[in-house]
Amino acid sequence: MTDVVAELRERVCALHRELPRNGLVAWTSGNLSARVPGEQLMVIKAGGVPFDELTPEAIVVCDLHGALVDGALSPSSDAATHGVVYRRMPEVGGVAHTHSSYATAWAARGEPIPCVLTAMADEFGGEIPVGPFARIGDAELGAGIVATLAGHRSPAVLMRSHGVFTVGPGPREAIKAAVMCEDVARTVHLARALGDPIPIAREDIDALYDRYQNAYGQR
Amino acid sequence: MTDVVAELRERVCALHRELPRNGLVAWTSGNLSARVPGEQLMVIKAGGVPFDELTPEAIVVCDLHGALVDGALSPSSDAATHGVVYRRMPEVGGVAHTHSSYATAWAARGEPIPCVLTAMADEFGGEIPVGPFARIGDAELGAGIVATLAGHRSPAVLMRSHGVFTVGPGPREAIKAAVMCEDVARTVHLARALGDPIPIAREDIDALYDRYQNAYGQR
Amino acid sequence: MTDVVAELRERVCALHRELPRNGLVAWTSGNLSARVPGEQLMVIKAGGVPFDELTPEAIVVCDLHGALVDGALSPSSDAATHGVVYRRMPEVGGVAHTHSSYATAWAARGEPIPCVLTAMADEFGGEIPVGPFARIGDAELGAGIVATLAGHRSPAVLMRSHGVFTVGPGPREAIKAAVMCEDVARTVHLARALGDPIPIAREDIDALYDRYQNAYGQR
Amino acid sequence: MTDVVAELRERVCALHRELPRNGLVAWTSGNLSARVPGEQLMVIKAGGVPFDELTPEAIVVCDLHGALVDGALSPSSDAATHGVVYRRMPEVGGVAHTHSSYATAWAARGEPIPCVLTAMADEFGGEIPVGPFARIGDAELGAGIVATLAGHRSPAVLMRSHGVFTVGPGPREAIKAAVMCEDVARTVHLARALGDPIPIAREDIDALYDRYQNAYGQR
Repeated sequence: MTDVVAELRERVCALHRELPRNGLVAWTSGNLSARVPGEQLMVIKAGGVPFDELTPEAIVVCDLHGALVDGALSPSSDAATHGVVYRRMPEVGGVAHTHSSYATAWAARGEPIPCVLTAMADEFGGEIPVGPFARIGDAELGAGIVATLAGHRSPAVLMRSHGVFTVGPGPREAIKAAVMCEDVARTVHLARALGDPIPIAREDIDALYDRYQNAYGQR
Repeated sequence: MTDVVAELRERVCALHRELPRNGLVAWTSGNLSARVPGEQLMVIKAGGVPFDELTPEAIVVCDLHGALVDGALSPSSDAATHGVVYRRMPEVGGVAHTHSSYATAWAARGEPIPCVLTAMADEFGGEIPVGPFARIGDAELGAGIVATLAGHRSPAVLMRSHGVFTVGPGPREAIKAAVMCEDVARTVHLARALGDPIPIAREDIDALYDRYQNAYGQR
Repeated sequence: MTDVVAELRERVCALHRELPRNGLVAWTSGNLSARVPGEQLMVIKAGGVPFDELTPEAIVVCDLHGALVDGALSPSSDAATHGVVYRRMPEVGGVAHTHSSYATAWAARGEPIPCVLTAMADEFGGEIPVGPFARIGDAELGAGIVATLAGHRSPAVLMRSHGVFTVGPGPREAIKAAVMCEDVARTVHLARALGDPIPIAREDIDALYDRYQNAYGQR
Repeated sequence: MTDVVAELRERVCALHRELPRNGLVAWTSGNLSARVPGEQLMVIKAGGVPFDELTPEAIVVCDLHGALVDGALSPSSDAATHGVVYRRMPEVGGVAHTHSSYATAWAARGEPIPCVLTAMADEFGGEIPVGPFARIGDAELGAGIVATLAGHRSPAVLMRSHGVFTVGPGPREAIKAAVMCEDVARTVHLARALGDPIPIAREDIDALYDRYQNAYGQR
């Protein structure tokens, strides 16, 4: 195992802590993966391991069809799905998956989250879309994620009756999108529970998205 | 006291920590028990002890009618109910009980939680059913749990106007079912609050349940 | 200052930790007091002190009209209200006050919490009643608490547009009632949000209450 | 850098901890600033820095148009907005900004939070108003905050489709207003979800506000 892979396993292990810390997961559900740069490989959480027992050894190396390449534990049963995303979206370096409550509630109704918050315009550039139903572990699930993301600026997609998948240039950005997805899913749920949130004009969404993607944070 | 019982008391004591950690209990409510393998005995939390003061001494040994066999403290007032489950369901090695908020809200309306999430199909294989009203401590309560579980694949049952009972081959699986029950109770509540969750086809539920029970996690 | 008072200040200081720990308070709101046995005195939180800076010195001694008797800080602006309860209810040894969210939402509508959970029958013996509106600090507020509790078995009362007051034989029981009040307020809120909780028959409530008050926990 | 500024950066850094601790922020969103006494300067969080990596070096010094004066990191993209508040409201010494969920849900509907709780009368002296929509970073946003606060006693304003801005004589009071704003936003949301909260009479609101502003806490 190269140093690059070893370092990636440690980093992805540490980033998994953000899932329970931000209230996105219950028991062992939810996972994060990262592409091994320049290889047809990824690292991903082993299946069924509790978050507070996670060590870099429980972040295993798989090929992009989800088959185990290096590691003593079986990969997450979502590994093949993550693999489809890496094979079909070369710009993606990290994928996260959760069943976070508010976002999954929108997914259970098959309803996209409308862009009614400036924070949504910033991060998602519009609505968070819903992808089709597919059985877990099926290639169909990965294909549905890729097809749905293709039509939107959002790095997050709600898979019908299932949960959230998010992508980013690296694993940290994928986790951030999962955290922000649940945050806006909750706020828009609460807004809708007592009335109708006011739409934001398309040109304002575009201006907010452009500013956030190009001028926010540290350059 | 044998070493087996001593080890079981320690393990059950440690597993009780999952109840407050996952937000399933308030004050001293909620408890977990485990069958003593090969004996007509179980270990169970003593009544009214705060979770953060719990020691293995507060996990007492009872017969399967709930009578104290070994320990300085009185058993939980739910001991007789747990006992009925062990007597009537020989495959059960652990029982958990909570009043977790979202699940108990479904129980208060006497309404089963419909299977509209892949995570529910995985863990519960269908709806989470509702059992009849019975007074706490009554043999009737245990009988109601057993009768309701008999007609379902779910390891969790909502007892009307009361709360959740879950079973498993051991105490860890019973706790996991209690955690997942509250998680799906919350998500389906949120989904229903703003509309109608989309049903999952019976054959998809069956395929998901089969995969999860046979291929998930570490083998 | 006697040893009895010093010990009581330490105990009441430590019990205040349960308020933020159980999510019952925001910033410096909420307080707990205890009667000094055999004296016309109580100890109570000083006003406006953050919970994580609380020391026994910030638990001051007052007479039962709320006037400071011993301590370097001003008592809570609720001191006079607590004092009315101790003067009019000799059986009470502890009083807690919170604005916990779900319970206060019922108070804002002026609506009692109906007894639709076995846990409510256990702890409250029926509905949690609503007392009249009164300005904070007014003698009227204390009088409203006492008059409303008089007609119920509940150790908790929702004061209209304001929050929760609970009583107990000592300060620990008062805190427990505040924790359980918020817990059932949330569960019944969630149950009502999606339909109608099923009533529990009066004779079942009576049987549950009797059992819990006389046979629960350690004797 | 003077000692006054160094001390202020440390204090503002420490106060930022209250934002995640009180559940007001997700990922790196939300910020706090403070006026440098007697100077046309403020200190404010650098943009995009995680809360648990925040050090006094990440609290940078800006002029009141949001331009960096001292510090190695870029200021928050909200700096110009905070600056407008300090320029137009000389009595303000601290400004906080969050997207806290319940308050932002009211903002998404463009609906002020009605004053139906004694705790709201105490802290806000009436409703929490809604300001107009404006793009983030625009001078318009700051102008909208100032204009809306001008017509109310509330130290908090909900900016439409965006989130919360609060002010105070210093940064601690601004944070407190942000915590209390979310707390009452949640309680009134919950009250409204199941019916109609009862209004509080104007003269009672005035009496409560006057008492709280002049007699609460330690003098």
